[in-house]
Amino acid sequence: MDDPESRVTEEVRQTADAIGRMEIRGAATIADAAARALRDQAEASAAETPDALRAELRAAARVLHDTRPTAVSLPNALRYVLLNADGTTAEDVRAAVATSVAEFRDRLENAQSDLGRVGANRLRDGDTVMTHCHSTDVLACVEAAVEQGKELSAIVKETRPRMQGHITARELDEMGVDVTLIVDSAARRYLNDVNHVLVGADSIAADGSVINKIGTSGLAVNARDRGTPIVCAAQTIKLHPDTLTGHTVDIEMRDESEVIDDETAADIGDPTVLNPAFDVTPPRYVDAIVTERGQYPPESIVTLMRELFGEATVEPWVE
Amino acid sequence: MDDPESRVTEEVRQTADAIGRMEIRGAATIADAAARALRDQAEASAAETPDALRAELRAAARVLHDTRPTAVSLPNALRYVLLNADGTTAEDVRAAVATSVAEFRDRLENAQSDLGRVGANRLRDGDTVMTHCHSTDVLACVEAAVEQGKELSAIVKETRPRMQGHITARELDEMGVDVTLIVDSAARRYLNDVNHVLVGADSIAADGSVINKIGTSGLAVNARDRGTPIVCAAQTIKLHPDTLTGHTVDIEMRDESEVIDDETAADIGDPTVLNPAFDVTPPRYVDAIVTERGQYPPESIVTLMRELFGEATVEPWVE
Amino acid sequence: MDDPESRVTEEVRQTADAIGRMEIRGAATIADAAARALRDQAEASAAETPDALRAELRAAARVLHDTRPTAVSLPNALRYVLLNADGTTAEDVRAAVATSVAEFRDRLENAQSDLGRVGANRLRDGDTVMTHCHSTDVLACVEAAVEQGKELSAIVKETRPRMQGHITARELDEMGVDVTLIVDSAARRYLNDVNHVLVGADSIAADGSVINKIGTSGLAVNARDRGTPIVCAAQTIKLHPDTLTGHTVDIEMRDESEVIDDETAADIGDPTVLNPAFDVTPPRYVDAIVTERGQYPPESIVTLMRELFGEATVEPWVE
Amino acid sequence: MDDPESRVTEEVRQTADAIGRMEIRGAATIADAAARALRDQAEASAAETPDALRAELRAAARVLHDTRPTAVSLPNALRYVLLNADGTTAEDVRAAVATSVAEFRDRLENAQSDLGRVGANRLRDGDTVMTHCHSTDVLACVEAAVEQGKELSAIVKETRPRMQGHITARELDEMGVDVTLIVDSAARRYLNDVNHVLVGADSIAADGSVINKIGTSGLAVNARDRGTPIVCAAQTIKLHPDTLTGHTVDIEMRDESEVIDDETAADIGDPTVLNPAFDVTPPRYVDAIVTERGQYPPESIVTLMRELFGEATVEPWVE
Amino acid sequence: MDDPESRVTEEVRQTADAIGRMEIRGAATIADAAARALRDQAEASAAETPDALRAELRAAARVLHDTRPTAVSLPNALRYVLLNADGTTAEDVRAAVATSVAEFRDRLENAQSDLGRVGANRLRDGDTVMTHCHSTDVLACVEAAVEQGKELSAIVKETRPRMQGHITARELDEMGVDVTLIVDSAARRYLNDVNHVLVGADSIAADGSVINKIGTSGLAVNARDRGTPIVCAAQTIKLHPDTLTGHTVDIEMRDESEVIDDETAADIGDPTVLNPAFDVTPPRYVDAIVTERGQYPPESIVTLMRELFGEATVEPWVE
Amino acid sequence: MDDPESRVTEEVRQTADAIGRMEIRGAATIADAAARALRDQAEASAAETPDALRAELRAAARVLHDTRPTAVSLPNALRYVLLNADGTTAEDVRAAVATSVAEFRDRLENAQSDLGRVGANRLRDGDTVMTHCHSTDVLACVEAAVEQGKELSAIVKETRPRMQGHITARELDEMGVDVTLIVDSAARRYLNDVNHVLVGADSIAADGSVINKIGTSGLAVNARDRGTPIVCAAQTIKLHPDTLTGHTVDIEMRDESEVIDDETAADIGDPTVLNPAFDVTPPRYVDAIVTERGQYPPESIVTLMRELFGEATVEPWVE
Repeated sequence: MDDPESRVTEEVRQTADAIGRMEIRGAATIADAAARALRDQAEASAAETPDALRAELRAAARVLHDTRPTAVSLPNALRYVLLNADGTTAEDVRAAVATSVAEFRDRLENAQSDLGRVGANRLRDGDTVMTHCHSTDVLACVEAAVEQGKELSAIVKETRPRMQGHITARELDEMGVDVTLIVDSAARRYLNDVNHVLVGADSIAADGSVINKIGTSGLAVNARDRGTPIVCAAQTIKLHPDTLTGHTVDIEMRDESEVIDDETAADIGDPTVLNPAFDVTPPRYVDAIVTERGQYPPESIVTLMRELFGEATVEPWVE
Repeated sequence: MDDPESRVTEEVRQTADAIGRMEIRGAATIADAAARALRDQAEASAAETPDALRAELRAAARVLHDTRPTAVSLPNALRYVLLNADGTTAEDVRAAVATSVAEFRDRLENAQSDLGRVGANRLRDGDTVMTHCHSTDVLACVEAAVEQGKELSAIVKETRPRMQGHITARELDEMGVDVTLIVDSAARRYLNDVNHVLVGADSIAADGSVINKIGTSGLAVNARDRGTPIVCAAQTIKLHPDTLTGHTVDIEMRDESEVIDDETAADIGDPTVLNPAFDVTPPRYVDAIVTERGQYPPESIVTLMRELFGEATVEPWVE
Repeated sequence: MDDPESRVTEEVRQTADAIGRMEIRGAATIADAAARALRDQAEASAAETPDALRAELRAAARVLHDTRPTAVSLPNALRYVLLNADGTTAEDVRAAVATSVAEFRDRLENAQSDLGRVGANRLRDGDTVMTHCHSTDVLACVEAAVEQGKELSAIVKETRPRMQGHITARELDEMGVDVTLIVDSAARRYLNDVNHVLVGADSIAADGSVINKIGTSGLAVNARDRGTPIVCAAQTIKLHPDTLTGHTVDIEMRDESEVIDDETAADIGDPTVLNPAFDVTPPRYVDAIVTERGQYPPESIVTLMRELFGEATVEPWVE
Repeated sequence: MDDPESRVTEEVRQTADAIGRMEIRGAATIADAAARALRDQAEASAAETPDALRAELRAAARVLHDTRPTAVSLPNALRYVLLNADGTTAEDVRAAVATSVAEFRDRLENAQSDLGRVGANRLRDGDTVMTHCHSTDVLACVEAAVEQGKELSAIVKETRPRMQGHITARELDEMGVDVTLIVDSAARRYLNDVNHVLVGADSIAADGSVINKIGTSGLAVNARDRGTPIVCAAQTIKLHPDTLTGHTVDIEMRDESEVIDDETAADIGDPTVLNPAFDVTPPRYVDAIVTERGQYPPESIVTLMRELFGEATVEPWVE
Repeated sequence: MDDPESRVTEEVRQTADAIGRMEIRGAATIADAAARALRDQAEASAAETPDALRAELRAAARVLHDTRPTAVSLPNALRYVLLNADGTTAEDVRAAVATSVAEFRDRLENAQSDLGRVGANRLRDGDTVMTHCHSTDVLACVEAAVEQGKELSAIVKETRPRMQGHITARELDEMGVDVTLIVDSAARRYLNDVNHVLVGADSIAADGSVINKIGTSGLAVNARDRGTPIVCAAQTIKLHPDTLTGHTVDIEMRDESEVIDDETAADIGDPTVLNPAFDVTPPRYVDAIVTERGQYPPESIVTLMRELFGEATVEPWVE
Repeated sequence: MDDPESRVTEEVRQTADAIGRMEIRGAATIADAAARALRDQAEASAAETPDALRAELRAAARVLHDTRPTAVSLPNALRYVLLNADGTTAEDVRAAVATSVAEFRDRLENAQSDLGRVGANRLRDGDTVMTHCHSTDVLACVEAAVEQGKELSAIVKETRPRMQGHITARELDEMGVDVTLIVDSAARRYLNDVNHVLVGADSIAADGSVINKIGTSGLAVNARDRGTPIVCAAQTIKLHPDTLTGHTVDIEMRDESEVIDDETAADIGDPTVLNPAFDVTPPRYVDAIVTERGQYPPESIVTLMRELFGEATVEPWVE
């Protein structure tokens, strides 16, 4: 049999390039583009047997995956489609792919609002929430609660070094939420005044760990110590299937200029600056993970991960 | 008997005024001035009986105390002197005051370096410490250790909102310590890489609580969770005798401009800003308090407090 | 198409009424009646297509559900049947419904004794258990253990305000268990003398929380502190599928006359009386949930909930 | 030398009898009577040397002590007086005894109000406290706070089996405190709504344990878990000097009729009833002990105990 | 119908005998033999209906199971095959059995190396691991990491009484790992110097508990206290399906001669010697369980157990 | 003035030598010899002023101290005597020294039995204790309890590497205690079966840490987790005054031959062997320290240390 890789379409390669060059970016946008690319590959394919078609699809998936292997939503989209590429004829497979891509995209489009409704159900009228960083999934929960007619207040951590708390503060204010801004270090002092801590996720590991903006884990430990529930809002495309096989998530180290400007640094002896973007919160400090598929204790998220994206001991696009 | 208050000297009143106007400030400077003022009152006094002299001293102490009742070192200086104003003749009392003032001032002058040596003994060659905010007592410990020939590294939290970590970084750099700067939220991530967390204190309460720069308590809870020892370095003038009688320490709320500038605030909907200067760390999260009189578990500091400054169920300057 | 609601049978409506009027009550009785009603609807239906039949079934489910939306076993029965209403012809669907109703009822009938055997396997000869309130599921575990020939003792908390511990004490006594009665406040004192704490559940949430008689959570926290395992015995009809979508369980506030009589209350100044029926125990304080389908860590119960009653992000009876 | 026991006065013996027959009862009343008896012994004594007088005083102390060895305030009074029976002549000793008895009685008379002021200082305007059982020391704290002009609310646990919470509720109501009554099992549910848990003490051990009404320890463990501070209010006559030498405090088992009436018991199979009056709360679950001599972490109370009542490795009344 | 037990083949009975006499031993070897025996039964069977064939297979399974009911891998093999014995003709069932046996054996053969790769992914270059006892699954993780080019160090607990740590030390040394040997009691002192604690498992229970060599639970509690992650490496044949139904795992008590020789024992008064082989670590002290099917939080392992080996409320070989 | 060091007597120097050569060893024997040496120096001295005599005593103390600076009881003896060398004439000082030496030696002689009685008071008839290593102070507690007529059982950890548990087992057996021997790793499994864990101490630090045989800290953490009280029995000569000034206690690393013999080591690849003699247990894991001066929470032991041996910020024998 000839090399299925040679049959990967130009359109797929262009999508891969665009992902690689970060023209296509954002977890949802990448996932959507990757799913569409597989559907297009299936449609354009001349394969006559299910096996040949699946080989082509795997080849296309490889091309797409290798352009940006650390983007958590990319393998999820590829896995979702390939795992559903069933059928006894090539035509069946093609149809199955079309269906699962449509389903995936549909889920993706509604994920944030579905998730928002789930998270909103945990909030009661009059509650105060504490936020860290800026998470559209967290904001979707608050917005849905406001739409349910609940009055909410928020204590917003500014979230050094990039002060994304300011964005959160503005968006909450626009929703009609009463906002109080604090420095990150003041969080513990106000934990007994809030009913929930709400955080997002950069990704979620099979062992239930939440990888999120630096400072999340320290906040979670204090929330547990104070008896304040802490909820992580994260769409299922944030579930990291590589972690099923024990892979750990690399923590990006960002530029030191986010922490201190050159002049001030020079002034204080040019210290080494470490600026990790994320940290890892063990599941025992998180009360629930809210997704568009419902809420889960972090220790159970692995079940959802396997259901959606396969067992993953071998990547499905590997020959 | 005439009113002893009328015999308070002009010099004492001037000192009181200078403290009230914050011309005299800084915990040690205030304590020193207050002790000297009492000695001067004793010397200048025409009192012929021990009781009359002590009444005058109490009157002088009241004048001094009332100008700035929240300065923790001020009542300590007054208490220390009054508690030692013993004697069966006025002359004896005068001498006892002179002696105890000299002793107090001598202790005060050497307190930081004595404390530094105690703290330094906990540090081993090659250790890494984590600091929060800027504390000269903490720096004295590090400096003494460096002088003992130990090589140390430091991970310095920048300490929003006022970035006093920059001052700490510079002073550590000047001592020859290898400095790494991080944002406050990154502390937990590095707690397993340090051997000690070192913090100072604004004041220390009779129940063993440490009142210190906002963020200390959250750091301490995480240090305990990670198994990293945390030490508070604080001279005994930081022990807060009012807390013996159950008084709680008021936490100063500072200006919101330290947290956010007006323009940015306007831009994000003018949120309420809460900017507490300090927080309270319960004793169970602190391994030791290092003073110039040795180190103590925080649960035992009340014993030292009573020994130095009296039982304090009634302020000694009250009639 | 005409309105499927118009085809809901009179029998279904009568069942709904009886549930609403609480003539039919008790978790198992309600679930049984609801399942039978759906089967009858399917049998009586004139629908000729699977879709039409399923629309009728959903309509019937809505009628049943809306009469008492807070009864946890009612949606479970409806969900179980609707989720299994598969088939390519109306006849197939009818048969599938009959089968799944029979299966559900069969499971239901045997649930308590099946659960009892599972729970009994955790108990060893000579063990002492501590109980809170009165739970037939807990008693089924003890009874099964006694039937296995194990000798057991029990420390029974009286369970104010309604003293259901007395019922538990009597039933245990009748089983031949050696019973000791204590006030609720004495529980901690005897936790080191028992091998297991056994509690029932009013309902169980997707995040693993156990909603049970007031006092359960305080007991669980102390059991963990003392190193005593705590097990919750609960049939799967207690799993609360609404909580999958983040809904929290409302805690019933009961009449204050259960706590204090009018005369005594008047005598002591007519205080406000708060009399919550239940409280919420987080999963981290519970060692296992014993059901008729085996035992689970509380953090995994969500998987069983989804398996039995569907994903539940949308109620299956909604159009 | 003749037997000093023969010189114990009739008045001392009568006091001892009255204590033994529980005509004199209540911690403060017993302590007061014992101190007066020693003073009377000293005054009536014909002893001509300090040693002879002290031997008589020890003999009198033995007589008094042995009538009711478990009353915690009795040995405290005896110890306090004997430890201060210094002097180089019999007359000096007599005077010293008179002084220390006067001092002791004066302290005792003011202890509750002094303690109240200390405890009140921990409470802020608008705070809510949770109480367990009925403690006049706790009520003194609340009353002093109300007199300071603070508005307080209280959540009062009814405190089975004897419902002393009703007395607490009435007295708080009379002070103008807003009272809510709950069953003991509901405490955890409301711990996040209160600012302080306030409990009294039956006695306090050298290792910092608080012996108090059954249910205190379970409440304290939950208060710590919820992050709510818990304070024990106890006059120093509750400090138990026997525990310095490792003695444990016997926990009184009270009549089962307090828990269940005969008829009901018969009805449920006549279970064993265990009705311990007190339990033991380890110091790590208590934030502070408030006494009339100021507040202390429970781990430091041993220092105050030794200061007031001696080292106690040998009882001072033993030959 | 005649008794299916009479049709169990001689080969199956011989395999059963060999397992019972412990000629066939070791978890994987037993599982492999049991699976093959069922396949041979299916092949040899003259049954003409699926039901008759399945009855024969169940009978064969019973024979095999009853020879050594405590071997955890034996029921797993039987369950796996019986659960997949589907088909509408005897021939189909025969084929399904052949397929599932082949699949099971294939999985089994590769399980350790698959598991090793998963575990290796958690280890980073330069890491130090601490081991307890001797586990080939743990060693497979380390070996795979070394093969990935990572340099590792190990702190090896000697593991009294049988000193299996020596075997671990030698095998790690042969892999090129830098080995440090310590007594078991020294583990806590070095926990802050290691990045991971790696332990194996004798078996794993449905409630997430890990049954492993005595000393594992004490190590795990200390690892959690020190903030060091602890991972259990265990193939899925160690999952104990009996525990799904609440059965607890019996802890083997081994001979006292492993702990002390007769002469020494006589010398010290012939104490009772208790020598339990294993202990039970609750899931809250374990960060992840690494299997050949990926890694799981211990609280989720029940899901994998049910997926692989069935719900297990009734053993599948029971009539 | 001439050099006081020149006046140090030959007897003192011989004692110093004997301590240095470890002819005089054991904490109590060293302390006794050092105290006697100072008394002899005082008696032999020709000094005519108190200052001259005290200078000689300090010089003698220096000579004694420097021969073995790590023996914890040596500085304690010297401090105790020097701190009490008061007087206004040389004769007074001489007498004060004689008295305090006599007192110190008397205390020392009775310390173990006094301590035993204190510890025994914590034990109740029928209790079971768990021991680690071999501590005569622990055994004194058990013996005193047995002499009080209490029946006790013991679970004795063998205490690798040197198996001192065997000595403990024999001595307990000889007292009539029922002894069970276990390997160290089995401790956690039996913690719920014992009423007390009893350990000794090598030394005790000012921050309340207990330095004791390796394995103590891991045992203490597990005892706390299981809710079992843990008591440390230690005479006051084990209190380490150097730690008041922050000094940490060096942990002796013992020979690797205690852990493994050469041949076995060679066989397994000659691993590095680390054999620390002691570890450090933080005070939060210890319930009480039992001394001959009564029992203390570990957080309060610093108070006793300062009372007996001085504040110690400067060693009293330094010029």
